[in-house]
This record gives sequence, structure tokens and C-alpha cells, in this order.
Amino acid sequence: MSEAALVITEDDPVLESDFAIEMVRQMRAIDTYGTYDDWHVSKILEPFVLTKEMKREIPIVGDPDEIVMARVKAFYHGIATMIEKECGLMAVPLLNLSHEGFGRVIITVGKLLVMDKTLRDVHRFGFPSLSKMKDEADKLLSVALEIIGKHSDVAGM
Amino acid sequence: MSEAALVITEDDPVLESDFAIEMVRQMRAIDTYGTYDDWHVSKILEPFVLTKEMKREIPIVGDPDEIVMARVKAFYHGIATMIEKECGLMAVPLLNLSHEGFGRVIITVGKLLVMDKTLRDVHRFGFPSLSKMKDEADKLLSVALEIIGKHSDVAGM
Repeated sequence: MSEAALVITEDDPVLESDFAIEMVRQMRAIDTYGTYDDWHVSKILEPFVLTKEMKREIPIVGDPDEIVMARVKAFYHGIATMIEKECGLMAVPLLNLSHEGFGRVIITVGKLLVMDKTLRDVHRFGFPSLSKMKDEADKLLSVALEIIGKHSDVAGM
Repeated sequence: MSEAALVITEDDPVLESDFAIEMVRQMRAIDTYGTYDDWHVSKILEPFVLTKEMKREIPIVGDPDEIVMARVKAFYHGIATMIEKECGLMAVPLLNLSHEGFGRVIITVGKLLVMDKTLRDVHRFGFPSLSKMKDEADKLLSVALEIIGKHSDVAGM
């Protein structure tokens, strides 16, 4: 895919961020056959980026395949890992997706719900760019950490 | 199933409890074709009861079918509804089951996790008797209400 190769450049500074490193780790974790072993990190994270043009080519209604589902999982597992690193408490993600690509994803820390998101059109899961993806992750992370800070007693339960 | 007919008697006092009434409502909600319409409530709740003898006949390893999955869902949705009735706040259940019958079920009220249970061997889901089933539900309910009482600020978020 020559057009997709342009989506993330190899020298993108975002690739050096903790978030991108964690996402690469998540993707490698589900790469059973070691396909990514000699790939550049920009290529590993490429499927997360869906530009407007690419999105337009995907039908509005559709069932997500296993690969997209795994990618959605990887993203939220990555967020959970980053929450865990920041607050030092175990963060557990839980996804519930129907085969039609609708569902809900939550992350809990102790008895506290630190993230709660409704998912729609999962077959079109992706971000306009890598930095937009990082922005989204940072937003989720900061909201989660704020809730944990306010209700640390419940998070520690 | 003549042997199964003995599992819950028609005059079982538990059938009059709020819990049993709610469970019947949950079962009717998933009864798309109105099969249960002229069934006695004892027959509707029968599949929830698995005596030791019945359990022994089910293989230890097995994949749960859609019907068992729906029953597990009905049980925890019933619990969520009862929590909601008691505390006046919306309780949302979330189930994540693998096709092998392992998973996790949670119920959240606001930002508070009021129930968190790991599920195993879902293909053998059932209770030794109707009153044991009610005991389990009552236990989950009282634990949930206790947490809500203690952390009503988080539950109200």
C-alpha cells in the first residue's frame, strides 16, 4: 500500500513518545507469528491511522473483522497500561463489542470506573493522524488520572 | 423433561419474591416468539436450576451455547435492575464472555463498580436450587448496596 506508507513518516516525533512505544508493545503482543519483527514502528502503527479519504472508502455499515477488533482492544489495553504506570494501581480494561461493531469499553481501577466509552462503527476504527491518536489517548489518560486523584479511596479498594 | 419438572415446585414460596418476579420478567424479555406466554413461572425459571446430578451429566469442558449465554445475561441484568430499584440510580451491567465460557461480568452505578465477578465454565451455569439462586442474588445485591451507601458521591457521578 504505497498511499498508506505516507500516513506515518519514519521520523515522526510522536513515535518516540511513551504512548507510541506502549502501542507498539501492544501490537507486538498480539503478533503471534512475529510478522512485525523486522518492521519499522511507523509501519506497525499504520493501521491505526485512517485519513478522511481512507474512511470514505469504507462502507458506513459493516461488521468489524477480527483484526480491527484486536486493534481496538490493543488501543484500550494500551491506555489501561499507561493509567497503571501513572497511578501505580492495576487498571483493568473490559470490552464488550457486538458482532455489528457496537459496544462499550470501560477501564476500572479498584472499584472506580476511570473510563467509560460507547463504541460505534468499530469497523471504521482509526484516527486522522498519529498525533490525533496520541491526543485522544492523552485526554482519556488525564481524565482517568483526575478521577483517580479525587477518589483515591475507591480506586484503592 | 419429567425429572426437571421436580426442580421447582409450582407452590415454591420463592416464586413470590421480588427477585423471582424480576427474573421471570428478564426471561420474558428475551422470549421473542412468546414461547413462555402460557407457561407457569416455575417452568420459566427451571433452566436456572442445575442440581448436582444434572451438573454431573454436563462435560467439564465445553462451549456455552447462545441459550446459556442469554440466561447468564438475564441473571446479571436482573441483579442490575434490582440494584437500580433499591438505590434509585441507574445500574449498568457489562458482560464479557469468551466463546469458551470464561469472562467477567461487572455492574456499574455512576463511576462506581458495585459488582465484579469472574465467570468460569459458563456452559454449566446454574444453581443447586431456586432458593440458592435467590441467596446468591441477595448477597450480590447487599454487597452492591453497601458499596453504594459508602461511596454515594462516586455512585452519583
